[in-house]
Formats: sequence, C-alpha cells, structure tokens
Amino acid sequence: MKLLISKKTGLHYIIDEKNGDYHCKEGTIKNEDLIDDNINIVKSSTGREFFKTQVNKTDEMSRIKRGPQIIMAKDIGYILSRTGIDRNSKIVEAGGGSGAATLFLSRFVKELHTYELNEDNIKIIEYNLRRNNVDNVKLTHGDLIDYIDGEDNIDLVFLDMPEPWVITNKNLLGLKKGGYVVCYVPSVTQILEIVKYVFERDDFYLEEVSEVILRHWRVKERVARPEHRKETDHTAFLVFVRKL
Amino acid sequence: MKLLISKKTGLHYIIDEKNGDYHCKEGTIKNEDLIDDNINIVKSSTGREFFKTQVNKTDEMSRIKRGPQIIMAKDIGYILSRTGIDRNSKIVEAGGGSGAATLFLSRFVKELHTYELNEDNIKIIEYNLRRNNVDNVKLTHGDLIDYIDGEDNIDLVFLDMPEPWVITNKNLLGLKKGGYVVCYVPSVTQILEIVKYVFERDDFYLEEVSEVILRHWRVKERVARPEHRKETDHTAFLVFVRKL
Amino acid sequence: MKLLISKKTGLHYIIDEKNGDYHCKEGTIKNEDLIDDNINIVKSSTGREFFKTQVNKTDEMSRIKRGPQIIMAKDIGYILSRTGIDRNSKIVEAGGGSGAATLFLSRFVKELHTYELNEDNIKIIEYNLRRNNVDNVKLTHGDLIDYIDGEDNIDLVFLDMPEPWVITNKNLLGLKKGGYVVCYVPSVTQILEIVKYVFERDDFYLEEVSEVILRHWRVKERVARPEHRKETDHTAFLVFVRKL
Amino acid sequence: MKLLISKKTGLHYIIDEKNGDYHCKEGTIKNEDLIDDNINIVKSSTGREFFKTQVNKTDEMSRIKRGPQIIMAKDIGYILSRTGIDRNSKIVEAGGGSGAATLFLSRFVKELHTYELNEDNIKIIEYNLRRNNVDNVKLTHGDLIDYIDGEDNIDLVFLDMPEPWVITNKNLLGLKKGGYVVCYVPSVTQILEIVKYVFERDDFYLEEVSEVILRHWRVKERVARPEHRKETDHTAFLVFVRKL
Repeated sequence: MKLLISKKTGLHYIIDEKNGDYHCKEGTIKNEDLIDDNINIVKSSTGREFFKTQVNKTDEMSRIKRGPQIIMAKDIGYILSRTGIDRNSKIVEAGGGSGAATLFLSRFVKELHTYELNEDNIKIIEYNLRRNNVDNVKLTHGDLIDYIDGEDNIDLVFLDMPEPWVITNKNLLGLKKGGYVVCYVPSVTQILEIVKYVFERDDFYLEEVSEVILRHWRVKERVARPEHRKETDHTAFLVFVRKL
Repeated sequence: MKLLISKKTGLHYIIDEKNGDYHCKEGTIKNEDLIDDNINIVKSSTGREFFKTQVNKTDEMSRIKRGPQIIMAKDIGYILSRTGIDRNSKIVEAGGGSGAATLFLSRFVKELHTYELNEDNIKIIEYNLRRNNVDNVKLTHGDLIDYIDGEDNIDLVFLDMPEPWVITNKNLLGLKKGGYVVCYVPSVTQILEIVKYVFERDDFYLEEVSEVILRHWRVKERVARPEHRKETDHTAFLVFVRKL
Repeated sequence: MKLLISKKTGLHYIIDEKNGDYHCKEGTIKNEDLIDDNINIVKSSTGREFFKTQVNKTDEMSRIKRGPQIIMAKDIGYILSRTGIDRNSKIVEAGGGSGAATLFLSRFVKELHTYELNEDNIKIIEYNLRRNNVDNVKLTHGDLIDYIDGEDNIDLVFLDMPEPWVITNKNLLGLKKGGYVVCYVPSVTQILEIVKYVFERDDFYLEEVSEVILRHWRVKERVARPEHRKETDHTAFLVFVRKL
Repeated sequence: MKLLISKKTGLHYIIDEKNGDYHCKEGTIKNEDLIDDNINIVKSSTGREFFKTQVNKTDEMSRIKRGPQIIMAKDIGYILSRTGIDRNSKIVEAGGGSGAATLFLSRFVKELHTYELNEDNIKIIEYNLRRNNVDNVKLTHGDLIDYIDGEDNIDLVFLDMPEPWVITNKNLLGLKKGGYVVCYVPSVTQILEIVKYVFERDDFYLEEVSEVILRHWRVKERVARPEHRKETDHTAFLVFVRKL
C-alpha cells in the first residue's frame, strides 16, 4: 500500500499498488511509477506531482469506517506514556463507537478487551479490526459494568462514554493495584461527576485531570507560525483515577 | 515497591517494602502497613495520612538519575501514536542525555538502539536501564551519523540533539520507506534549519511541525479550573520528517 | 441601531430601525417590535425568535469594509493595557489595510495618526472612520518612515506591516522616552529580524515578545467545554520594543 | 520617575530622580546619570549596566499595594476592546480587593464607580488611586447590590467576586440596553452558576464565555521559543452577559 500526497492540493491518497493504474481528479498515476522504489516524486497524467511513500498503521486509520479519528492521537499517546503501561499490559476499554481508540491502544499493548453495547458499532469495530489485521483485541457485545469484576490483572480501564461514573462507582476487582481508570470526557460537568464518586471511595485516588492541546505549525523558507485555524482544538479532558 | 502520596503535602514516596519501616519527615510508616493489601490509606507515626498504591513504570522514572523527566510524556506519547509504529517496531535514537526518552520508547517497541557521544551520559543511561529492568535497548557509545547507514529496517529515528539537521542531511539508508525522522527541538530557529535541509531533498517530506501542550486542572467539590501556574509549559517542538 | 441574534441559527443582524420592517431569510421582523423597548425577544413572521439589543461600537466593527476583524480584539486589548497608554495618549500607526486596528485604538486614546501607503486602503479606512463617526484620527497617505521624525510626543507606535524592522531601524525622535514600538507580526522569522535591529541599538530595549490566545467556551445547563473548533487560533505575535 | 532594568539580573527599579543617588544591591546609581537624558544605559558603582527609561502607567502599577497585578492586563484589555466601550463610557465595578482592575479600567473610560465591602480594601484602593493620580473613580464603601438600581446609563458592570450571580440575578436598571455584565471567575463551577441565572431571564443574553491565555516568548540571536515555565497560566474565565 502506498501513500501519495499531492504537492498542489495537499490531498492524501492511499493506493493499493496491486490494483493497477490509479485514477483520481488530479490525473492518472501509472502503476509502474507506484511500484518503482526509485521514484519518490510521482507525476500524474495531468502533470501534478505527488510525494510517494509507504503506508503505515496511522495512515491506515484514516480509512477506518466512520471517518478519520486521528485527532485522538494526542490523547491516546499521553495515556500510553503517562499510565506506566507497556507492551506486556492488559487493557479493558468501553465506549468509543467506531474503534479509533481500540486501534491505537491495540498497537502498543499485549491484550485489549473492548466492550460495546451497540450492535451497529460492534460490526464497524469488527470491520476496522479485520481491515487493520489486529489480532490482540477481544470484542464483547455487552455492558462493561456486567463484566468488569470478572476480568483479572488489568493495568488500565479506558472509558470513552458519556457517564463513566457508572463504572468508577463499581467494584473494579480485576484492576491491579497501581492501575488506572482513565475517563475521556469532553465536558467539565462530567469531570465533576467523576470526581464526586472518586472522593467517596477509599480505594481510588484522583491522580490527575488534564487536557492535551496540539498546535500545528506552518514552516516554510521565510515563514514559521502556528496555523491560523484549528479544525480540532478541544477533544476531551483526561481524568486519571488510580487504584489503591 | 509501593507508592505513597501524602494527603497533606502531596509529596510522593517510592518505598521498597523489603526494607522494613520507612522513616521520613512526615513520620514513620510501619512495614506491616506497607505490606497489608487491605490498607489503602496508611497512617504515619505522626498521624499523617497517605494514599498507598503499587509503583508502575512511569512512577519509577521519577527515580532515574538526573531528575524526573516525566515532562516528556506528552511528547513521546504523541510520537508513539502519530508515527504508526507499534510493539513490533525498531527504533533508533540519538541524544537525550539521561535516557528519559529511552525509557519511555523502550516500553512500547520491540527494539531500540540508542547512540550517545558523551561517556558520562552512557553510564547514567546504563544505570537507568538496569534499574528499570529494560532489556530491549542496545546502547552504543558513538555518533549516530557514523552508524546510521549500517542500520536496517528502522521505523523511526528519534533525535533529541541541538543540531539534528546534521543527520537529516545524511543518507538514511536503514530507515524504511514510510518511516520517520522525528526531531525534538526547543527553538523555532532549529526548525528552520531542519526544514531547509529537508526541502533540498527529494527522498524526504516534511509531514508535520507541531507542539503538544499539556494543561493540568484542579478539580475538587466546588472548584474546577486550570492550574494557575505551569512548572513546564514549553518543552520542545516536534518535527516529523518522512522518508519517501 | 439594533442587534438581533437568532436563537436558532445564531446569526447576527444589525438593523436600522428607521428603515421600517426588516426582511431576511428567517422571516420578517416588524418595525414596531424593533422600536418597542419592552420587547427583548422578538418573533419574526415565520416564528423564529431573536434576542434584541442595542448595537455598540464593537458590533459596528463587524460592518466595516473588508470584513469583520474583531479577531484583533484580543491583541489590541492587550496592547492597550500593557503599554501604559490612556485616554490622553497620542498614537501613531502604520499598515493594517482596512483600518480594524484604527477603529479599536481610536476608541481609547486622544489622538491617532494613521499612515497608509496604498490609495485603495486609504479610501476604505476613510469610509470606515466616517461610518463609525470617528473624529480623533488623522489619516495620511504616505510612508510612515518619511514622517516619523516630524511627530512629537508619541506614546505608542503600532506597526502592522510585513517588514516593521524598516522602522525600528529609524531614528524615532518623536517617540517619548518610555514609549513603545509594538510590532504585530504573524511569523517568528519576522520577530527574529526585528530583534536583530533592536539589539544593535542602545536607545531601544526589547521588553516582551508574546502571543495572546483566546479560547471560547460552550456553556449550557449540563455542558461546559472549550469549543471543538477554532476559526482563529493564531493571529500574530506582539513584539514590545521600548524607547530608552 | 525612571525605570531601570538590570542587564544582568533583569530586576526592575522604579526610581524618583528627585531623591538623589540610588542605592541597591547592584551598586549605587548616580543622580546625574538618572537625570541626563542622553544616557540610556546607566552604569552602577559596581559596574552593573541598566537600561534606563521613563516610567509609564503600567510600570507604576507594579508599585501598588498588595503586589503587582499586571497579570490582569490580558483580561482587562480584552474586556475593553470586546465590549464596545470607549473613553466616553461609564463603568461600574465591584470586588477586586486592591484595585488592580480599577487602575486599568480608569485609564480608558470617562467615569468608573467602584463598590467595595471591605473597609481595609477601601483604604488600599484609596491609597493606590492617590498614588497614581486617578481622578475619574468614585469609590463607595458598600455592597453593589444595594446601589446598582440607582446608577444611570452604565455601559459595563465588571464583577470580580466569588458569587457574581447574586448580581446577575438583580434588576440591573441602570445598565444600558446593549451594555454588559462581565464576570471574572476562576472556576468553571462559577460559570455554571452564572449561566443558570442568565438562562432564567429574558432581559439578558449570554454572549460569550472565554479565556485569554498569554504566552511569553524568549527571543535572542539564535533562540526563539516559548518560555519553559509560566508563573501565571490561568487567571480567570470571562463571562460576557449582555442586556437586551
């Protein structure tokens, strides 16, 4: 699979080189140019130039159903590095619809168990996992709160749902001491609800509430400035609740 | 290893429970309380209360020599999720002194090769790797630019050095097509130098220049606001250069 | 002049109540409703509801030619409060095209002298000043660098131009000791040029380089979060150069 | 009054040149050097160099009792430019303790009426107003809510108090249609309370909730980056409530 980036429009194309020539609004790209590893800048039939490179796992995410969710990269990345998990960790996840977080998290841990209530979402996640050749995710159609106590040796519970306090209010037996419940919530009103439940317990500790903000820059020969617009500024707040 | 967090001072203590009672300015903590898994809130001899939990890999980083560098978590996390690498990836790294990035990155990839010119730093990194039981890092005393072409199948080259353009100007044969050179530079003047070198080449593409900003919040029962002060606001800019 | 804000679409309408009924896509608004001071929520013929209030000087700016430039409010406001000027101050300004900064600054100082090279811009600024009944602005068609030495007792020189170092390199005789040259520049490369000139002089001091970032929040009954998108994130950096 | 800035320490000194030589830890500065307008860089007896310039109204604020509150500059500036007020406006203000906002606002409007409940604060504000030669502020010892209806033709009510909803819940007869109540509150929980009261009324409109963030940069010959630390990141949120 190749990634082409148009010099003129900045558009990205993910192309399977087994499918022959590629046709798009910016012209036809010859299959021999796609395959030839010595060609880095490809020219289309209309003269447009494209940077050509190999697709990676993050590029592929832009093809997942229900749209590109690469905007979560900043948040998922911080959770990975912040919570002390590693490639031997076991994670449980609930919510999140199309599986964007599922794809991110599965790349870096040993085992990921995803719970999803909605049957349509289940199908979308299954499709996206298959398409990205993910083999370390167990997908359960059901409510996390019915299962969580049965899990064992969990390092991290990641909750991307409107009312995560339902779960922070449960007895999270399977979660390791020192492990985390991380809630991904857009609104401060949700943080306040979570905190209320955590403060009532003596087996959990509110370690951190934070927001990760990503700022893109435009840098050329004589220009170096933050982008004027931001398609995405705020995604969600991260609430790190830790098991005692 | 236990982590204790003082309710009063907020200070963190990392304590080896094999060493008996623990003495600090906030009183003595009995070993039996450290060991007893049913005790989540420990009381010291002076009556101070501490949240008690299990140490994880991120907590342990606060004990690495040359001080806690957890401030990089936001940046390293974004690089992990953004560049498409995963637990099967091979990474090369240069610079970074005490090995904070080394510890972060080694948790999530298969193999990490770290180059370091300074002999004192080599010793510190060795110490920190041993202390954290890291076994997938190869440490080379020498300059990356003398070795980089000998590497094979690298997914990511991470550069935390003052003049990374020395390397972006090299022939990075070992780097996979689609792979990245990510430069971690504090100043915009450095970005401008890097970009100058990248624009002269037809086998590299400037994919992104960005900054990750982390904002901590204080949330209690009737309070929800960003922290008034920020010990660390700016760490560095991230320059994502991609091989064509 | 009335300001109407549609409850449904959020669109703003500035309406002269002397012109009778007002017709728009959201229906017709009766003149008697516009005039009646006891009506705060107006209903259109199609049943749409509008908040009704009195237009102020900032609303009126949205009608200036060459589009709404209210995005400068954050920057101009900080310059006003930061530089120690007040309603008795005399300001000189150059650049800025359509006169958005001119309108802002003229509201708060005694006298503003605006220089503009481009004849089309001169006409637009004249139109905008007239429309907003501004009477303390002197507008000169010409280059600031030809006149600046003739000015007397200036408290602030505001430069919104691509190459402000042309002026920071001049002998700014008319500027008071303790007064400021404030440069409004989008790119860090421009800051570097300005700083180069200032460091060569012994009658100017680089007091501050900063950026003002404005973040809008969405707050309703159960929601309180930063807006997901930002139409404008970065406008420009502010460089405060002070006369010794 | 002169402002001296030490090249070595960056410390600021505000010196009355009528008081003869000036002695400080960085040496003695001769009165003749203070007075001589041709000297921009002053040398102390110990060889330290100082940039010398004239004090302005913002510098003087650093001398107000209860410490420098120049951190409000970003917020007050935005309120000035955002609310459509000008040098002919009449403002009412309540809260704010030492009078930092009072000094800022009084510079740019015709008339400012400040209400303060605490008698100690009254004395501090009086002292600060006298010291800064402010003559357009009327200071009332008492609660704004007892007086507000008696005011006439107010353009802006500025509230820097923990529970501003007490006032947003009042009948603000004196406030002009199109005028604003601006609340300055640190916590999102306070915003939620204000919004609750505003939504219950049909004579007020929630126009904007926002936060102004100021980022200082360090720029030298080869360095251009945001400051690593931020003494002040968050001050308060601004809630703009508008009269219909």
